[in-house]
Amino acid sequence: MSTNSMSRRRFLQSTGAAALWLPTAVKGYTSSEMQALYVDGVMQEDVSKWGLDTPSLCVDLNVLEANIARMQSTTASNGIASRPHAKTHKTPIIAQMQLDSGSVGICTAKVSEAEAMFQHGIEQILMTTTNVTPTKIRRAMNLRESCDDFIQATDSPDNARLLSAAAESMGMVADIVVDVDPGGHRTGITPGQPALQLAQLIDGLPGLRLRGLLCYDGGSQHVKGFEQRKNQTLERLVAATGTYDLFQQSGLSTEIFSGGGTGTYNIDHETRGLTDVQVGSYVFMDAQYIDIGGESDAEAYNDFGPSLTILATVLNAQYEGRATTDAGAKSCTINRPWPVVKGETGMSYTSGSDEFGSLRYEDNASRSYEVGDKLELIVSHCDPVVNLYNQMYAIRNDRVEAIWPIAARGMSA
Amino acid sequence: MSTNSMSRRRFLQSTGAAALWLPTAVKGYTSSEMQALYVDGVMQEDVSKWGLDTPSLCVDLNVLEANIARMQSTTASNGIASRPHAKTHKTPIIAQMQLDSGSVGICTAKVSEAEAMFQHGIEQILMTTTNVTPTKIRRAMNLRESCDDFIQATDSPDNARLLSAAAESMGMVADIVVDVDPGGHRTGITPGQPALQLAQLIDGLPGLRLRGLLCYDGGSQHVKGFEQRKNQTLERLVAATGTYDLFQQSGLSTEIFSGGGTGTYNIDHETRGLTDVQVGSYVFMDAQYIDIGGESDAEAYNDFGPSLTILATVLNAQYEGRATTDAGAKSCTINRPWPVVKGETGMSYTSGSDEFGSLRYEDNASRSYEVGDKLELIVSHCDPVVNLYNQMYAIRNDRVEAIWPIAARGMSA
Repeated sequence: MSTNSMSRRRFLQSTGAAALWLPTAVKGYTSSEMQALYVDGVMQEDVSKWGLDTPSLCVDLNVLEANIARMQSTTASNGIASRPHAKTHKTPIIAQMQLDSGSVGICTAKVSEAEAMFQHGIEQILMTTTNVTPTKIRRAMNLRESCDDFIQATDSPDNARLLSAAAESMGMVADIVVDVDPGGHRTGITPGQPALQLAQLIDGLPGLRLRGLLCYDGGSQHVKGFEQRKNQTLERLVAATGTYDLFQQSGLSTEIFSGGGTGTYNIDHETRGLTDVQVGSYVFMDAQYIDIGGESDAEAYNDFGPSLTILATVLNAQYEGRATTDAGAKSCTINRPWPVVKGETGMSYTSGSDEFGSLRYEDNASRSYEVGDKLELIVSHCDPVVNLYNQMYAIRNDRVEAIWPIAARGMSA
Repeated sequence: MSTNSMSRRRFLQSTGAAALWLPTAVKGYTSSEMQALYVDGVMQEDVSKWGLDTPSLCVDLNVLEANIARMQSTTASNGIASRPHAKTHKTPIIAQMQLDSGSVGICTAKVSEAEAMFQHGIEQILMTTTNVTPTKIRRAMNLRESCDDFIQATDSPDNARLLSAAAESMGMVADIVVDVDPGGHRTGITPGQPALQLAQLIDGLPGLRLRGLLCYDGGSQHVKGFEQRKNQTLERLVAATGTYDLFQQSGLSTEIFSGGGTGTYNIDHETRGLTDVQVGSYVFMDAQYIDIGGESDAEAYNDFGPSLTILATVLNAQYEGRATTDAGAKSCTINRPWPVVKGETGMSYTSGSDEFGSLRYEDNASRSYEVGDKLELIVSHCDPVVNLYNQMYAIRNDRVEAIWPIAARGMSA
């Protein structure tokens, strides 16, 4: 360290923390400053979202609440329930909003997600993935020990026997649904006799209690065009309904017959016996879902509004026809379609580079940006974007109302 | 809550925590159990990496150390230094290993990364991105106040004036390099006269001290074929060298002339005046870099070994020709080429689905997996993969030697 540096350090130490430099009227807030301003669930200062440091993840509360209300009213009028998938938001506060609106429970994809939700007060949890290793089974059974309303999926006889042995060794009876393959061969057991035999096995095992079945047709959720989507998913769910019938004829529980998602939430109730939809993305929406088209608008799926955005800042605007921002792949992922600049036209955004976003103007661009300007991006694919951030800012009418921890971020185990 | 549930809860509470269920000889460890076993930097138990819960991020220490040593010896024999980019690993322990091997400093892409590195003991930091907002400039200057060896980039006269005003208001002189555009028009100022004029401005501003220039040619790092890569990057760096000459002729500091990356580390020294390479991925390597081919092997870039892997578990193996794992996009990203199953042949892996990985067998598959089997994946693109995990397991000869916090994970602001 040079003598100059030493002197400077001593000098600066003597000046203390008062040296706050604020060259413009727009006050900016770092993430830690925002945390300090958020005391007992109340913001201590009126902060505009445009004052947030970037990249930041934001959720518009009016839109989020409308999305949750619409899902509840539609499923209720269709005679089914919702069991929203928490893999999308990973945020216990949103799970609680969903339960408060009338959802019968939430789903999780991973046991670590389920643990995080339970630790934050959520009790009605259906884990849709089978736990196969000793470690995972132990985690799931430990959770079940504390959480009466934790239900697990299984998709093979061997696994069902392991689960039963684990539950028995802990003096418990664990609640189980059979995961039925909709034809994608990703997870789940073959519908019909294999699924029936698995259900009968579970029904007879001392450590397990059969609660029904699930069949998540992920492959149909993003089919473009409402009619095409409807035809595909109803056809693919025929075998699951046949399995439901076999369960019923055999006197097995069909208390739960869960399936569907955001793309088919207003279709799935036509599947006989289905009790609830595992809708996830509807709370946030994203460019991928907007693209599939809806029942009332073939161009844009607008049953739900885009509530989730990323705030970004322009870093460089000195080259013709383009600008560079601070939100690249590590803030937006590289999912397609690319993020959409909210409220603007005639510009495209790409987040293919790790650290930087790239904005290109077309002839009809609604505006051009200068260095330091902020912009808001509708996310490409909400689930993996949420999984990049530790928190989201809850915004109402452009003001920060709350800061929500994404408690299950990174919980992929 | 049902009476049964109440009874069960009471019963289980009375049985206490002794009910650990371990059905096989293979002991498994959750992430929190591993944390508990890692005391004062020493593992208290001998744990195989195959006992880790999945998905888990692992780094092979022998390979990592060999990569760092090779970079150091090659750059030294080429008469330049290395200034590794911490955006790749986001891990202060690895930054310290790089400095210990002889690197002249580290780079960061974001001020939050720089803060995290400094908080964990790293002092020689060059931030390669320009800070443009009041909030970011304040953060950078606050860091500079504590960290004598923090150097910032700028790429416009307006920004240089802001930086100088900020430093002056805090009674400081901040160290600055000029970011020169290699032609990608992403960040940086135009080489030649515009860059020279900016450097002269900086040199005359009371709050700034010019330290030189940087020119990161990101667009050349992944060009396939060594000769093509060499020709492209040397051609693109001609303008930066011209700028270096202008700085020298004007008596401006060229103490730092930083550029290059993992793809061109053994090419960049041919650029006259270049002092150091901002190499990042070489510590881990990934499927993207292996694919570009090297000087000695046109098929595979093997100057450095792949040290970074993801452990995954097979969840479903009941469908012909395929298996499903627990490591999808949220564990691997969707970068291409897809992850590679380490040590196996005749199988392909895709992580296009958020929660699940998909393994397909070809006719010559070296093996087939059963439910519960673990496998190891060479990552597709190391930077964004690291950014998904809170920690990595440091492995030597298949045993866990340490657990490293990825302190700058998610630090994109």
